[in-house]
Amino acid sequence: MSAKKILVLNGPNLNLLGKREPAVYGRQTLEDICALITARAKERGLQCDFYQSNSEGALIDKIHTVLDGYDGCVFNAGAYTHYSYALRDAIASVEKPFIEVHMSNVHKREEFRRHSVLSPVCAGVIAGFGADSYLLALDALQGILDKQERQI
Amino acid sequence: MSAKKILVLNGPNLNLLGKREPAVYGRQTLEDICALITARAKERGLQCDFYQSNSEGALIDKIHTVLDGYDGCVFNAGAYTHYSYALRDAIASVEKPFIEVHMSNVHKREEFRRHSVLSPVCAGVIAGFGADSYLLALDALQGILDKQERQI
Amino acid sequence: MSAKKILVLNGPNLNLLGKREPAVYGRQTLEDICALITARAKERGLQCDFYQSNSEGALIDKIHTVLDGYDGCVFNAGAYTHYSYALRDAIASVEKPFIEVHMSNVHKREEFRRHSVLSPVCAGVIAGFGADSYLLALDALQGILDKQERQI
Amino acid sequence: MSAKKILVLNGPNLNLLGKREPAVYGRQTLEDICALITARAKERGLQCDFYQSNSEGALIDKIHTVLDGYDGCVFNAGAYTHYSYALRDAIASVEKPFIEVHMSNVHKREEFRRHSVLSPVCAGVIAGFGADSYLLALDALQGILDKQERQI
Amino acid sequence: MSAKKILVLNGPNLNLLGKREPAVYGRQTLEDICALITARAKERGLQCDFYQSNSEGALIDKIHTVLDGYDGCVFNAGAYTHYSYALRDAIASVEKPFIEVHMSNVHKREEFRRHSVLSPVCAGVIAGFGADSYLLALDALQGILDKQERQI
Amino acid sequence: MSAKKILVLNGPNLNLLGKREPAVYGRQTLEDICALITARAKERGLQCDFYQSNSEGALIDKIHTVLDGYDGCVFNAGAYTHYSYALRDAIASVEKPFIEVHMSNVHKREEFRRHSVLSPVCAGVIAGFGADSYLLALDALQGILDKQERQI
Amino acid sequence: MSAKKILVLNGPNLNLLGKREPAVYGRQTLEDICALITARAKERGLQCDFYQSNSEGALIDKIHTVLDGYDGCVFNAGAYTHYSYALRDAIASVEKPFIEVHMSNVHKREEFRRHSVLSPVCAGVIAGFGADSYLLALDALQGILDKQERQI
Amino acid sequence: MSAKKILVLNGPNLNLLGKREPAVYGRQTLEDICALITARAKERGLQCDFYQSNSEGALIDKIHTVLDGYDGCVFNAGAYTHYSYALRDAIASVEKPFIEVHMSNVHKREEFRRHSVLSPVCAGVIAGFGADSYLLALDALQGILDKQERQI
Amino acid sequence: MSAKKILVLNGPNLNLLGKREPAVYGRQTLEDICALITARAKERGLQCDFYQSNSEGALIDKIHTVLDGYDGCVFNAGAYTHYSYALRDAIASVEKPFIEVHMSNVHKREEFRRHSVLSPVCAGVIAGFGADSYLLALDALQGILDKQERQI
Amino acid sequence: MSAKKILVLNGPNLNLLGKREPAVYGRQTLEDICALITARAKERGLQCDFYQSNSEGALIDKIHTVLDGYDGCVFNAGAYTHYSYALRDAIASVEKPFIEVHMSNVHKREEFRRHSVLSPVCAGVIAGFGADSYLLALDALQGILDKQERQI
Amino acid sequence: MSAKKILVLNGPNLNLLGKREPAVYGRQTLEDICALITARAKERGLQCDFYQSNSEGALIDKIHTVLDGYDGCVFNAGAYTHYSYALRDAIASVEKPFIEVHMSNVHKREEFRRHSVLSPVCAGVIAGFGADSYLLALDALQGILDKQERQI
Amino acid sequence: MSAKKILVLNGPNLNLLGKREPAVYGRQTLEDICALITARAKERGLQCDFYQSNSEGALIDKIHTVLDGYDGCVFNAGAYTHYSYALRDAIASVEKPFIEVHMSNVHKREEFRRHSVLSPVCAGVIAGFGADSYLLALDALQGILDKQERQI
Repeated sequence: MSAKKILVLNGPNLNLLGKREPAVYGRQTLEDICALITARAKERGLQCDFYQSNSEGALIDKIHTVLDGYDGCVFNAGAYTHYSYALRDAIASVEKPFIEVHMSNVHKREEFRRHSVLSPVCAGVIAGFGADSYLLALDALQGILDKQERQI
Repeated sequence: MSAKKILVLNGPNLNLLGKREPAVYGRQTLEDICALITARAKERGLQCDFYQSNSEGALIDKIHTVLDGYDGCVFNAGAYTHYSYALRDAIASVEKPFIEVHMSNVHKREEFRRHSVLSPVCAGVIAGFGADSYLLALDALQGILDKQERQI
Repeated sequence: MSAKKILVLNGPNLNLLGKREPAVYGRQTLEDICALITARAKERGLQCDFYQSNSEGALIDKIHTVLDGYDGCVFNAGAYTHYSYALRDAIASVEKPFIEVHMSNVHKREEFRRHSVLSPVCAGVIAGFGADSYLLALDALQGILDKQERQI
Repeated sequence: MSAKKILVLNGPNLNLLGKREPAVYGRQTLEDICALITARAKERGLQCDFYQSNSEGALIDKIHTVLDGYDGCVFNAGAYTHYSYALRDAIASVEKPFIEVHMSNVHKREEFRRHSVLSPVCAGVIAGFGADSYLLALDALQGILDKQERQI
Repeated sequence: MSAKKILVLNGPNLNLLGKREPAVYGRQTLEDICALITARAKERGLQCDFYQSNSEGALIDKIHTVLDGYDGCVFNAGAYTHYSYALRDAIASVEKPFIEVHMSNVHKREEFRRHSVLSPVCAGVIAGFGADSYLLALDALQGILDKQERQI
Repeated sequence: MSAKKILVLNGPNLNLLGKREPAVYGRQTLEDICALITARAKERGLQCDFYQSNSEGALIDKIHTVLDGYDGCVFNAGAYTHYSYALRDAIASVEKPFIEVHMSNVHKREEFRRHSVLSPVCAGVIAGFGADSYLLALDALQGILDKQERQI
Repeated sequence: MSAKKILVLNGPNLNLLGKREPAVYGRQTLEDICALITARAKERGLQCDFYQSNSEGALIDKIHTVLDGYDGCVFNAGAYTHYSYALRDAIASVEKPFIEVHMSNVHKREEFRRHSVLSPVCAGVIAGFGADSYLLALDALQGILDKQERQI
Repeated sequence: MSAKKILVLNGPNLNLLGKREPAVYGRQTLEDICALITARAKERGLQCDFYQSNSEGALIDKIHTVLDGYDGCVFNAGAYTHYSYALRDAIASVEKPFIEVHMSNVHKREEFRRHSVLSPVCAGVIAGFGADSYLLALDALQGILDKQERQI
Repeated sequence: MSAKKILVLNGPNLNLLGKREPAVYGRQTLEDICALITARAKERGLQCDFYQSNSEGALIDKIHTVLDGYDGCVFNAGAYTHYSYALRDAIASVEKPFIEVHMSNVHKREEFRRHSVLSPVCAGVIAGFGADSYLLALDALQGILDKQERQI
Repeated sequence: MSAKKILVLNGPNLNLLGKREPAVYGRQTLEDICALITARAKERGLQCDFYQSNSEGALIDKIHTVLDGYDGCVFNAGAYTHYSYALRDAIASVEKPFIEVHMSNVHKREEFRRHSVLSPVCAGVIAGFGADSYLLALDALQGILDKQERQI
Repeated sequence: MSAKKILVLNGPNLNLLGKREPAVYGRQTLEDICALITARAKERGLQCDFYQSNSEGALIDKIHTVLDGYDGCVFNAGAYTHYSYALRDAIASVEKPFIEVHMSNVHKREEFRRHSVLSPVCAGVIAGFGADSYLLALDALQGILDKQERQI
Repeated sequence: MSAKKILVLNGPNLNLLGKREPAVYGRQTLEDICALITARAKERGLQCDFYQSNSEGALIDKIHTVLDGYDGCVFNAGAYTHYSYALRDAIASVEKPFIEVHMSNVHKREEFRRHSVLSPVCAGVIAGFGADSYLLALDALQGILDKQERQI
């Protein structure tokens, strides 16, 4: 059995990680975090691709590639989380497990951040653990994929 | 009098038609549907152009071309229907008739799909007839254009 | 195969068509529109019956006749569209395709007209095309009936 | 100039006046009130017809007769006041002045009675004066008709 | 002491019982249910009359007959339950005990079915027991009438 | 029996009557209207005092004088109608009949004008008849005072 | 076939029955009511256990015993009815029929009492008949259990 | 440095795990899950205590023991998640990291399950991964405790 | 140390105390209450000034004098409590402790009285104890001033 | 006349007073506060019992003892204040005066703390004065009991 | 052409500027700001009058003087911005351009400050620039007046 | 000190300025307005760059360049103003002053235009002055930058 392929997808403003509001998001850049994810993926025998865009349309295009190209997706949709029904439809349409992640605990912040339009079409949600949110999501996704395999 | 030119515009995730959730959207691809529309347009003496994008910005750019390039537009805005006030402004600004179409009956689905921010600036709405929604919209648009002509 | 039978049902105040608010509804009377529908039905090989009532109860009684007497229904419920859960139950109970039609684009008018309690139990919705809304609904209904037949 | 003709229209449950909840509505029957209105109309040189029905549809039918048969209408719509958009459309369509009347001050009672869907299409509203509400409405309507006449 | 007289009143679409949505309402027709009620009434020494109408106005008219003709009423108002303030006023005005019944557990269905405008003016509510709802209501009503008698 | 004394009270911006928005309020000044009211009062054997203020506090002070100085009050509270709970308390505390009047039909205008915090503590409401609203209120108030007298 | 076992469960403050607010709940104590239920159960060949607690947790513990120990449950959850999602989950998890009962007609009282979070997971609801509510629920539950048996 | 002590706290109805609604919660019992957690804790060098209660008060009492007895807490509050402000205050008062866990993706279920009153006072949230949710939470908590240590 | 100076401020309609609605407010006049407060202040070694106005503007002017002239304020804002954001800003700006008092328990009355826009800028709230509410507020204020002094 | 007996009741998390969030609640423990209350009670000739529980059910049980064992109750219900309709019913049922107290000014904190479901059934409310809130409540309660006595 | 006359109007609490909450409003007094405005007006060839009041009624009176005495108005209505429909009517009635100004960015503060009832009747809004907000408003007003002049 | 650099950013549909809805937006094209801004900037010694895009993602990308490339930004976000939390996050992350501008007074138009999700993260807001809104924003921004400089 070949290695599982996982897409790690990051949405708007996450390219500024480590440069913006360190009190909320810490000092690690997105590149630092991707390196951590790559290391963890290696340990787990998973293969990870990374993509970041500020554009809703580009994110939808990328999600469509999960249909044939990936076994699952770890997705931090940034502020699109709260209103992008188009991203929601994209996730629903590819029928692969998506894990919604947030670095901060969104429930401690502004009221509008407490509602996610993506959660109902994701397999699960992990929020509040900084860069660890991504690593936990990787583990969670592997658990889901392993279960799927056992059912075949 | 030259042939009327009509833009058939499709929004996010509609490129996956026929590949996603066939229980809701059927098995026809967007290409299949465009072929049906082209055939109907030919019968009606109309000229149709097609455009699909997952990007809100690209859809707005395309709507602006209706200003000088088309007599009307058949528009399935996908999930943008429910929140894109920017698309609404674009439609309002070009002052040509737009027909809002949906393949599924959006009122039978999730609550958020029952509200369209585009309807108040469209000439009319057709929803629930699968690929036929587009063909009916073509007929409806022709009716509007014919009436406009008679008034000149 | 015998001709399909279709009921064209009109609700409250539609008997005044052509006499009231021509800016919104045009100058055609309900009789004019029925004549147009009859002509179109003839072209399509359909048989149409017409009924109009201002009474919610009488409309429910008539809808019940669709159970055994018609293949489908084109229904303009007028203002009952916005609150008659009794009509909704009637439509749901006869299990034949209903097309909800409106002559005006209800979304351009008062806020209360943007909500239909009937849409979730109808096959589809057509709004905004004047008398053409009925003709388009006839075509849409025929499409549905044809598809049903092919599935048998 | 011939006498103005006015329709005095009463909706659901008003046939029970004098028999139900006298603490709220007093002990006069609808017949008693009609007699008072007739007397006042006579003084004013107006001609009054009376109609009461518990049926929304029958009330709509009667409102349509105002189109050609009456100069204005005094209307107590009972509980239909709070939800009958069909009555609202009927009133709007006949384009004659309607005065909305209530015997009790509806604002002192249950919350749902504080909202009238008819008020925006009536010329004015009079509530809280028992049988006098009708007499005041008659005077108010005469005032409106007199003003209309002076403007011709 | 003569036998108590009870009106069993059924509202819109209940004439289709046994013919519509058997998964929700079962296969008994309204006639079957009336026969069961008659049998139970006989056992209890009660006299039952039955009336069904799809018309809100006709139901109001019938409720008014309870004023002088019946000791109480078992009422399944169908979908009028959720918006007919006119029926509510009618019930309030006759000052006899009404039992609101529903065959299905309305709280398990669409959100709009969870709100009854009639409950506050009824003596009690019974929902969810199929045809048994009517029989239980008959027993409940008898209990109320017996208590009233003991208080005289 | 001495003449009844009535206070005609006008709230904010009504001093501009005849100078502002004639399309809504007509061309009569507040002085013109007071003259009409005085004339009508004379016919009815009533004595009227007039007071206008833009100040909520001054209006409350004046309402308190109704306690010992007047038999009732005709009150057009202008925009205070929609939020002044202090005026509401003032009216409630003097326990004399107040008639709420509006010259325009407030229900045809902005949404916020459809809610009155004063109505539940007034005897009744009259809206939509221009200057006649005041005259009708005078008649209505006289009716109430006459009834009170007969009950003594 | 052995006798059906039924749990009659009472929630917060019901131990005070007969001692508190007799205008609302009557003068019978909970013990009186249990005696009535026992008598009726005996007539019906049912076996009843009784439990009352003011503690949400204790009620949940007891509901869990229905899983293996009872055929169904008659449950008056008192004020927990309106907010205890934990009780709701408990009921849903034991997959036996529960009948929600209320002695008073909750819809005639404070607004918050009109919403039950338990109704959607109960078989049915009976409210407004004093102690009779329990007896009717016993009958209703027996009806359900009899139907289940016939289906085996 | 001694082993970190962690409390694994489970709220209402979780004692039924593996016995109730397996489609939602799977077939593992709470004991099975505790065994998995113990094993993982051993690997990680953590010490775990377990507590389950259906009682809000007992859960609050237990949370208070975290103040002096534990380094952090993994908490599945079941349905109390959605309304127990008392649990929220308890968590806030002990000032140790709590991880909110849910086995199912609560956002795919009833609307009321989408709102957690506990999230704003927890360090983070993990939902949707069955028993793995607990294991991921253990890892997440260890990450937080490690970071705290490095900061000392 | 000189005596603390306290302003006792009363808002709209409180000048009618003892003359209006004695069932709610008792029979004491505002003068009676001021005498009680003066007596209590004397016992406590406090100096009290009194001011009442029905005018929001005059109350704001007076609150501004607290800035330099008083150590704190006992404030019954009457109905302004529920909407006067201008009074709220005035209180916030003077940065001295204000105690919000109400004679009646406002939570037992109309819904609108349950919301105070002043509470968030006051030190505390006392409601429901008749004239005693003022005396308790005096004591409460003294407690706050004593604590402030000890902190200097 | 024997000494009045008063129950001082404390709800969830108040056992942590002095240990949690001193910025909000100060450094006094619940024991310190009880000592202060006992001292004040002694001065006033009152007898006080104290009870604290984190359990809603235990608090209800204790409230029931007020029925026969106490003259009134000072109650800080902690977070149960905001949702426990069961506590509300308990208070209402014992028909003795309850004073709702809060140490902090709840209106300055999270939005959910601004709504109390208990206030409408308490005699009055005191909030924002730290431990003094209890002492003021004791005085307030004594005032109420004295007034009751004078009325006998 | 004579110099334009402009009224600079300030509402409640603005007389305390420079004395209250300097973190929000800075240290300039209203007098300082008026001096700056006068200087700028001189440069622009405008004539400015200044008025401040804490009284809603006095502000309305002053707004009425704009009708005949001024070409436009710069208005900081303080907290009246959020609820004074009476000020809104006053502005609407004088039909001169008003510029709504705020020194702080009201959208960064409490939720209630985000809604202005005055904005819809003002020409424009300027918020967030401290004393500069007034100077920018002066410039903006001049721009409007210049445009009006060119159109004559 | 070198010249300040300012980005003038325009969002969706603003490229159509002068071509669309001149009644609302005037006849100036975006190019005309940019020329006016350039001229004003020159006078003020500021350097301006211009960027317009219909794409949310492209606007976010451009906002990120403000981080290192500009001293502040004048931003007309068009319809994205009302829902783009992604733009809001972008603005918040660059920590430079942004001025939100609108040419029309958005508060006079559709309800949805009255809410801006961007205002809370902008320094200030200017709306309603046509092209002058941009010039005023330039002046406002210069004022802010000057103040920042004086504080260094």
